[in-house]
Amino acid sequence: MTGFDESVSPPARVAELGEGISLDELHLAARNHGMPLESLRYDTTPPGLHYLLIHYDIPALDPREWRLRIDGHIRRPRTLDLAEIQAMPQITHRVTMECAGNGRARLEPRPVSQPWLDEAVSTADWTGTPLKALLRETGINDDAVDVVFTGADHGIERGVEQDYQRGLPLAEALDEDVLLVHTMNGQPLPPQHGAPLRLLIPGWYGMAQVKWLTRISVLDRAFDGYQNVTAYRIKQEPGEAGVLVSRIHPRALLTPPGFPDFQTRTRIVERGSQELTGRAWSGWAPITRVEISIDGGIDWNDAELGAQPSRYAWCSWNWTWHASTPGHYELCARATDAAGTVQPVGQTWNLQGMANNHAQRVPVVVR
Amino acid sequence: MTGFDESVSPPARVAELGEGISLDELHLAARNHGMPLESLRYDTTPPGLHYLLIHYDIPALDPREWRLRIDGHIRRPRTLDLAEIQAMPQITHRVTMECAGNGRARLEPRPVSQPWLDEAVSTADWTGTPLKALLRETGINDDAVDVVFTGADHGIERGVEQDYQRGLPLAEALDEDVLLVHTMNGQPLPPQHGAPLRLLIPGWYGMAQVKWLTRISVLDRAFDGYQNVTAYRIKQEPGEAGVLVSRIHPRALLTPPGFPDFQTRTRIVERGSQELTGRAWSGWAPITRVEISIDGGIDWNDAELGAQPSRYAWCSWNWTWHASTPGHYELCARATDAAGTVQPVGQTWNLQGMANNHAQRVPVVVR
Repeated sequence: MTGFDESVSPPARVAELGEGISLDELHLAARNHGMPLESLRYDTTPPGLHYLLIHYDIPALDPREWRLRIDGHIRRPRTLDLAEIQAMPQITHRVTMECAGNGRARLEPRPVSQPWLDEAVSTADWTGTPLKALLRETGINDDAVDVVFTGADHGIERGVEQDYQRGLPLAEALDEDVLLVHTMNGQPLPPQHGAPLRLLIPGWYGMAQVKWLTRISVLDRAFDGYQNVTAYRIKQEPGEAGVLVSRIHPRALLTPPGFPDFQTRTRIVERGSQELTGRAWSGWAPITRVEISIDGGIDWNDAELGAQPSRYAWCSWNWTWHASTPGHYELCARATDAAGTVQPVGQTWNLQGMANNHAQRVPVVVR
Repeated sequence: MTGFDESVSPPARVAELGEGISLDELHLAARNHGMPLESLRYDTTPPGLHYLLIHYDIPALDPREWRLRIDGHIRRPRTLDLAEIQAMPQITHRVTMECAGNGRARLEPRPVSQPWLDEAVSTADWTGTPLKALLRETGINDDAVDVVFTGADHGIERGVEQDYQRGLPLAEALDEDVLLVHTMNGQPLPPQHGAPLRLLIPGWYGMAQVKWLTRISVLDRAFDGYQNVTAYRIKQEPGEAGVLVSRIHPRALLTPPGFPDFQTRTRIVERGSQELTGRAWSGWAPITRVEISIDGGIDWNDAELGAQPSRYAWCSWNWTWHASTPGHYELCARATDAAGTVQPVGQTWNLQGMANNHAQRVPVVVR
């Protein structure tokens, strides 16, 4: 705790009912950005369209000077440079990543933070070296509990000064799909996505995918840092410990059909058959069903699912809408995964607006 | 005029004093994005960090199928494919581009549209073929007045259905620096920046730089399309014709020093000497002076200017702040160009919030 006054670093709060978005929230929305939803047409999100959530600043790191320190409850602490990491075995995973705060700005009342609507999701091909082998080589002590990942980005959040840090249970860190990533879509990782090295935990929300990695520490206790025990928790009341946010809940999004109005983003669709398409994903299990509604969630129709290109990437879906009657419609989609979880249509409110997978609503006029 | 009702396509309006940002405005802010201001550290903005303003959707164009039609009041109408354009002489310009709506969300009262704060500016190396030679080859008629550029993006704006179109006086279109661009920072133009081909008019605000070009038409009259005569005008009252928005007014931005608070973006700076840096640009003339204030615009100090790398690119500046006394400060910067225009500190309000170059304000705590 650093004693910054609340004008500098205000506590978490929930907006009054009907309170508009503040300039502070807008400032976050202007820096960070979602994926324009017409980009759901791409299997992998083109460079520059992948959503971004940066807590503090993009650090200025020189990849030649940069080092990764691995230490803590291990027998052989070590420091690696980028060339050493790139000389290790390399794997590429196609992964859909989503911000844990996606959907927050549609909650009523609205938790005041990065004000996402529906767009904080994207898919990329990430290349790097498996963390498991590297960690095993360091000789993990038997008393190890958590692994802590530290990024180079430094800031204050709700009064707490910090480098961005996230802890992960050792068993999760040793999952064979967890990577230390230096390449995105076949190109060097851009600065805003964590250059020169970031963590990738496929299937988890974005807060776990620590960018600008500088240190990996093995702890003999559970990590109690801000981002694990305060920020990314699902709670109803401020005093509550809450539940840790981890894997991505199932969600489907529609590629908005037709063309938009500039201001309202309402879609105009010509009368006739409309091929509706979109994507669906879950960090828990493969997608087994996508349903579409044209009446705001009253009646539902089963979409046809495309192939799921990898365990962790979104799958495409399509459904033909016979839009024969002009008028106003509200399109929704919802996903179900193989774990049996059905995406809720309405909001599942929580104090910080985390892991909220309520259904998208796309206003459409058929003419 | 298409008769869409106002719930689909509302008229332009100005927010009530104190009215928060609406979900419609937030929707635009979540799609489009500014350049995180720490990126002022880069001479050219890294891919994916360049600001974006897309009126409708990013079109899905196949570069193999794509053609550019040149017609109108010329003797030899023609249709070109991308390879033909790439086979012509190629030039690269380093250009700073800014959205004409930059600063809009800080106006009081606030025009309701894309709600930019300070971040809608970036610099890139753009490569393409000069428009002048290509237009000359078509045999421009003596009665030619304007050249109209049509993009593939289609939508409605304030009730008017349209392809995005901008007209330019013939003399401006024949400026030797105007390019048809297919390459950005040495890479093929990304979809969101106008692939496969866009217009580049160095020194003009972004609205002139038509993306996803499909047609260039020479008119024997002044173009009276929506984006020229309605949208991008500086007016005080709705009925007014107003003044056309064209070249970029001088502006300086500070790279925010120290580190930020997540929510307020207030900067924390350690007591001592602080090298303040930033960029300044003008579409009218080279930058001749940058001044810095640490007290919200009361006293001003001359910064040292770096080289201006090209006629149309921002120049760097720096000034050493002896931040010896802890406390709260408000940093501002203002630019002057060789045309003698001094950037205003306060707002120069207009109905649509266009071409507004009031000074940035960076709250800083020295500790």
